[in-house]
Amino acid sequence: MESTSTAIIGLGTVGSGVAQVLLAHADRIAHRAGRQIELRRVIVRDLEKSRDFQLPRDLISSDIDTVVNDPSIPVVIQLIGGLEPARTIMLRLLESGKDVVTANKALLAEHGSELFDRARDVGRSIAFEASVGGGIPIITAIGQSLSANRIESLYGILNGTSNYIMTRMTEEGIGYEQALAEAQQRGYAESDPTLDVDGSDAAQKLAILAQLAYGARPSWQSIPRTGIEQLSTDDLQYTDQMGYRIKLLAIAQLLDDGLEMHVSPTLVRRGQPLAEVRNSENAVSVVSDVAGRIFFQGRGAGQMPTASAVVADLIDTVVGRSHLTFKQMGLGTSRQGPLKMKSPSEHSGRYYLRMSVVDEPGVMAEVAGILGTHQVSINSIIQRESAAVGTSHHIPLIIMTHKTTEGSLDTALAQLDKSENVLPSFVRMRVLD
Amino acid sequence: MESTSTAIIGLGTVGSGVAQVLLAHADRIAHRAGRQIELRRVIVRDLEKSRDFQLPRDLISSDIDTVVNDPSIPVVIQLIGGLEPARTIMLRLLESGKDVVTANKALLAEHGSELFDRARDVGRSIAFEASVGGGIPIITAIGQSLSANRIESLYGILNGTSNYIMTRMTEEGIGYEQALAEAQQRGYAESDPTLDVDGSDAAQKLAILAQLAYGARPSWQSIPRTGIEQLSTDDLQYTDQMGYRIKLLAIAQLLDDGLEMHVSPTLVRRGQPLAEVRNSENAVSVVSDVAGRIFFQGRGAGQMPTASAVVADLIDTVVGRSHLTFKQMGLGTSRQGPLKMKSPSEHSGRYYLRMSVVDEPGVMAEVAGILGTHQVSINSIIQRESAAVGTSHHIPLIIMTHKTTEGSLDTALAQLDKSENVLPSFVRMRVLD
Repeated sequence: MESTSTAIIGLGTVGSGVAQVLLAHADRIAHRAGRQIELRRVIVRDLEKSRDFQLPRDLISSDIDTVVNDPSIPVVIQLIGGLEPARTIMLRLLESGKDVVTANKALLAEHGSELFDRARDVGRSIAFEASVGGGIPIITAIGQSLSANRIESLYGILNGTSNYIMTRMTEEGIGYEQALAEAQQRGYAESDPTLDVDGSDAAQKLAILAQLAYGARPSWQSIPRTGIEQLSTDDLQYTDQMGYRIKLLAIAQLLDDGLEMHVSPTLVRRGQPLAEVRNSENAVSVVSDVAGRIFFQGRGAGQMPTASAVVADLIDTVVGRSHLTFKQMGLGTSRQGPLKMKSPSEHSGRYYLRMSVVDEPGVMAEVAGILGTHQVSINSIIQRESAAVGTSHHIPLIIMTHKTTEGSLDTALAQLDKSENVLPSFVRMRVLD
Repeated sequence: MESTSTAIIGLGTVGSGVAQVLLAHADRIAHRAGRQIELRRVIVRDLEKSRDFQLPRDLISSDIDTVVNDPSIPVVIQLIGGLEPARTIMLRLLESGKDVVTANKALLAEHGSELFDRARDVGRSIAFEASVGGGIPIITAIGQSLSANRIESLYGILNGTSNYIMTRMTEEGIGYEQALAEAQQRGYAESDPTLDVDGSDAAQKLAILAQLAYGARPSWQSIPRTGIEQLSTDDLQYTDQMGYRIKLLAIAQLLDDGLEMHVSPTLVRRGQPLAEVRNSENAVSVVSDVAGRIFFQGRGAGQMPTASAVVADLIDTVVGRSHLTFKQMGLGTSRQGPLKMKSPSEHSGRYYLRMSVVDEPGVMAEVAGILGTHQVSINSIIQRESAAVGTSHHIPLIIMTHKTTEGSLDTALAQLDKSENVLPSFVRMRVLD
């Protein structure tokens, strides 16, 4: 049986998982690839670091040139996180004639255009199934299985850390800080969880999906995003009683007048598949014009699900499929022409609003009047009893709006903010149609 | 731009959908394939039949030789249903050097081994994403995206007609006959719905998935199957109150001692993704050793979702991916060696039992005793009030068992059948673990 050599750059969580799969399941992988895949080299930063699992010592090196300059290694698994030196290493690998498999979503979201263009120029491929959704084959679905379709919208739960925290808050009634601490304890959240909980990680993944689905090249920083840090158990409970779950949704929608993208906590009606995605699971709902809606759910992160995607990409690259897919994918090309990105103020949707108002006659009419003046039409109002009876003459007021624009809502809320009868802290969240 | 010609054999529902997609979205498809795909010929049985949509007259022919003998058509979309002449046509197409795309699950379930072997012998490919799950890319997921994994189990809602009928029975409380009539009226069920409602269609699809996932070559007729024709609204309501939905599940499980496959109405706990699949939707839950559980849901049948899968396969074939996939897929080869199929009596699981028993002291003990003697251990018993109070001294008894084998249960029920205190009609259904 023929053999192809590969190397892993970066032996962190995912890299260790990939090495374990390649070594433990070599026969299975040879069967699927039609040839042996030999792990020839593993590049680590620190040769002395102790590791959970043992690799043959002669595989390990800290010198990346032993991979770059080895022409007998045609495909490399690049698993260093962050932007640099990952970007430079990717470019060096491509330019030395190697196909690359990667799971680095931050790198692709930030420098994807440059890397894809360079790969195309030098006739190599980049495979990146593992960069979004872990074990869920969403990149293959969009890039290959839905090739007859125009993707009309993507709705994703793309950050497992946030979803875990929100699930615990909803189901256990605990606060954000406690749920975060629990997530950190279980290894679902890093010691600095900022990029996970502020929506950045989800925005990076959404940018990759949008590039694939629409040929859009948005900077992921330009995607409006709201995180879950301010989420209160009050809202989780109110919305639960109303039949909704709150999920951190990453949404891209192709509309007549442009592409709308954002990441924010969003109310999803219970019973809808996205609403039922619990704990650290990820999910993507894809609506396209020929196939209709397709829903994917699975373990979106973690060592082994991500390793599964990496090894599938490796096999695809070794058998030649990645080359064909990458060539046709249109990534980094402008064949479809640029898409207009809708400005955030034009984004439209239904909203959940919660505010504290003075418990007096006429206040409800004032609030409704101000909203109405700014084209924010009310679908339903729920007036709650005060959480702290007797200590305040303010009561919580919950409003579900009809469809409106973000801009109209901004203006209306700014106006409400001036009212003496409304406390200045509003909660606003999108509601999935 | 280069161009590749194709032909459609069979202009039924799916064929018309594929033709419409190819003609209406030619630019999009050319963009994704990197070349024009020209629909050169459409073969119909009856040239005079009036059709919903108009095709250029010179495309249409009733002479299949105009495709078989045309060397300028390298890839053919074969959409004739049933076994013959579909099988003979497939063989002729392959032998004349054409790659084939098909949606014919009955043909692949019955003659898949022969067709795959022949394709391999003559160096052609067969693509069949559309044969299972309509627009859900489950064939690609198993055959490609999960290539690093051993598939441990597959749980599928693979027949939209049955799922629609069961959803209506559950949600509207109507009987089987009425729900079936409604499904027929809406075009979800054919005038002869037998293959859909008796589990055959789901068994055929399960056989295709099992062949892909396990290299198993079971005859689909050997897969034990129970349909939904005998399903009563009573059971739907009882199980609903107990927190379950009943779904017609097609299940394949790889166990230490062999492969277990069956199709039957199965209780699924609410909140689990499979339980929430409503109406004519399909879904598949795949559990594998590296990626964990991945869940797919979408429109599993119907003109356009199926056409989406057919056109994706067409593009895959034109760009060369299908060849690589088909070659590596191991379909029809015995490289992995044959798998032992577990005999139905060894199949194990938890069961829901409903029986009518005489409402007298000691009867419950008798029932529990008989079950216990045959290694059927009881998890819970619910005794219902009689549905017809005063007219009968029988009451319904509902038993949820612990895990047992189909064989033990058969013996126990045969024994119960002899008791004077138990009416001879039992309801038994599997419960998903």
